[in-house]
Amino acid sequence: MSEELTGNILVAQSGGPTAVINSSLAGVITEALNHECIEEIYGGLNGIQGILSEDLIDLAAESQQNIRGLRTTPACALGSCRYQLKSAEDFDRLFQVFETHNIRFFFYIGDNDAMGVAQKVNAQAQQRGYALRVIGIPKSIDNDLAMTDHCPGYGSTVKYLAATIREMALDHEGMGQHDFVSIVEVMGRNAGWISAGGTLARRRNAPEDPPHIVLMPEAPLQPEKFLESVRNVLKKNRHCMVVAAEGLTDINGNYLGANTQVKDGFGHAALGGVADYLRTLVEENLGVKVRSAKFGVAQRTAAHCASLTDADEAYACGQAAVRHAVEGATGKMVALVRGEGEHYSSETTIVELSEVAEAVKTLPAAWISEDGMNVNYQFNKYAMPLIQGEVQVPYELGVPKYVVLECHFIQKQLEAYQTEKQ
Amino acid sequence: MSEELTGNILVAQSGGPTAVINSSLAGVITEALNHECIEEIYGGLNGIQGILSEDLIDLAAESQQNIRGLRTTPACALGSCRYQLKSAEDFDRLFQVFETHNIRFFFYIGDNDAMGVAQKVNAQAQQRGYALRVIGIPKSIDNDLAMTDHCPGYGSTVKYLAATIREMALDHEGMGQHDFVSIVEVMGRNAGWISAGGTLARRRNAPEDPPHIVLMPEAPLQPEKFLESVRNVLKKNRHCMVVAAEGLTDINGNYLGANTQVKDGFGHAALGGVADYLRTLVEENLGVKVRSAKFGVAQRTAAHCASLTDADEAYACGQAAVRHAVEGATGKMVALVRGEGEHYSSETTIVELSEVAEAVKTLPAAWISEDGMNVNYQFNKYAMPLIQGEVQVPYELGVPKYVVLECHFIQKQLEAYQTEKQ
Repeated sequence: MSEELTGNILVAQSGGPTAVINSSLAGVITEALNHECIEEIYGGLNGIQGILSEDLIDLAAESQQNIRGLRTTPACALGSCRYQLKSAEDFDRLFQVFETHNIRFFFYIGDNDAMGVAQKVNAQAQQRGYALRVIGIPKSIDNDLAMTDHCPGYGSTVKYLAATIREMALDHEGMGQHDFVSIVEVMGRNAGWISAGGTLARRRNAPEDPPHIVLMPEAPLQPEKFLESVRNVLKKNRHCMVVAAEGLTDINGNYLGANTQVKDGFGHAALGGVADYLRTLVEENLGVKVRSAKFGVAQRTAAHCASLTDADEAYACGQAAVRHAVEGATGKMVALVRGEGEHYSSETTIVELSEVAEAVKTLPAAWISEDGMNVNYQFNKYAMPLIQGEVQVPYELGVPKYVVLECHFIQKQLEAYQTEKQ
Repeated sequence: MSEELTGNILVAQSGGPTAVINSSLAGVITEALNHECIEEIYGGLNGIQGILSEDLIDLAAESQQNIRGLRTTPACALGSCRYQLKSAEDFDRLFQVFETHNIRFFFYIGDNDAMGVAQKVNAQAQQRGYALRVIGIPKSIDNDLAMTDHCPGYGSTVKYLAATIREMALDHEGMGQHDFVSIVEVMGRNAGWISAGGTLARRRNAPEDPPHIVLMPEAPLQPEKFLESVRNVLKKNRHCMVVAAEGLTDINGNYLGANTQVKDGFGHAALGGVADYLRTLVEENLGVKVRSAKFGVAQRTAAHCASLTDADEAYACGQAAVRHAVEGATGKMVALVRGEGEHYSSETTIVELSEVAEAVKTLPAAWISEDGMNVNYQFNKYAMPLIQGEVQVPYELGVPKYVVLECHFIQKQLEAYQTEKQ
């Protein structure tokens, strides 16, 4: 047990939104109220970038309804960023903000990039002798963070996609007498967890159910084999349903749908053209009609079809972060550990930020079928528990009612600061 | 009151699936059990095309759970087609099937094309002196059928899209500091009812909420005005959200996203490239990042987010069709009439098939804003009641559990028949 530390919390969100990232935020806020060593609960707007601008709000001033509502509200209630801390000026400024507002507990909810930021902040704090506890809280619909059984956000994304794919499959089964191919393009830049999740749409004991083909970054596309596989499916069915990850590559590692002119704040290529690539490939070679769908950001924010297991685990991760920080941990990320029993259970633990930052966990090769275009029962056993249970969102006037924070701003005490354009 | 007619029912589905077309089917089956003059309840597989092939099933043999489950199962449980009755051979064959199976009540659930088919069948029956009652049951996510206040299927589609757009808007609000444009391509070949429905995503008293721009076939795109509008939104917001109908045209009436090489069974051009067109337009002229989403058939089968009002009305339309047929009506379509009161209510009536067939009801000009890129309070007043209430779908293993009919086939008694390739 380390020495007692007293002061304020700062929590912020980074990277792409999820259906349950706000549930983690609610977990942090709720747990913080249990600890006397925590004085104020501040939220940083727009991630580390907003913190540099001293854009802080008083989360303890939000209504109880708002905090409860966060548990079912998708996207980033605090706003997000993809900003990376690089320059010495940025770090000086950050610790100026921390010191001015007596920030002693810093929680960063995000993916592996965010864990890299958190790790740097922790290292700097130690270097500067500034008493600070830094804990990362995982979120990733991509499910590609190392050292955790799975990532909050993933279960909800694949539940929504699996439900939608089952509905689309019914549509396809009902339609027409002609062969056609249906392509669903899903997120997943470096790993095929989301594509593979599409297979959860299959009914119990119905391995022949759509989707028939699953394309993942772990198995680069071999066009001839793919077309052969489509042909085989069409021999048996009127339609062939394909789920393809946006990050699918050719055998040389080139993104098949890359729009190389656009890069995000972390320098990653903007993706999004795999469905178009595959459509052309199929139409030109097989001469059958192709339908495509691309859910864009809807797949990461579909709280109306979120997994209760996922939302509850996200909340638990937020709570655990606070408990561990109060107990003295720093430079760690909360991780989920799966129970050994026959029935699914999970608990939280902490792992080193350094082992998570910038690492990417891909699908185990043994879970991917030999032809690289499907996953086996091991994936099903892993993923099925993560989509169980339905979050009940409140509705108002026919559409989900989500929380918007009141945002009680904390008085700025520092001069304005210009973050760099990244 | 016309003479009593005794015999069998034949019900079939036509055109694109919806989230509630099976609810109408359930209404037909349930109501049919109340009438002694109805002997057998047959379903025709794959619409009129399957009926020509004598593909009939015994719907009365299905379990009660299955019939109840149809009320929450999307797509076409009986299968669909886009086949048009044209040749004399087809009509001869059809009445051969009817006579062989003593079909005296024919219900066709579909859109305006299907109502055209039903109208022809009715005319032929009279010409041939074959005692038959023909009633059309409306379904159209496009909401473009004449003579009915609205179409079953529409409310569920726009409820799903409005919920999804609200979620996407939260995502956009949370993300980044850079300008970007988000384009959601929705269905709607000839009318903007679905695009306009995207505006239901706005919160009460928040007309500035996304979507900021709504593009409808009723108002051909004027690229300069559109770009100017996007520019104005971006001045106020970090993002501009656009909902565009797939059937959007230029001022000469050319589809902006047409894939003119592909036509469906009714000879309509296959659409689906409007988002790409608009993306290029915005990127080339404004130099901002564009995100796009295209829900494809998911938007017409999203029973997991269906409107209870819509599902109940679809069911009532099925019931009404049987009641009217038993009472002697033929050559009619069931239509929905809105009550006059302050609170929304609807009831069913019947209208002439001839007034519905192939007519298209577009948005009233007075409901569209002067610039052609938004709708006003009159649309909101019209559409808001249609998305109220949430259908509760059962879940199994984390995804919606939908009914698949057991399909007890009726013994074929005729020689095989080859329908024409359309």
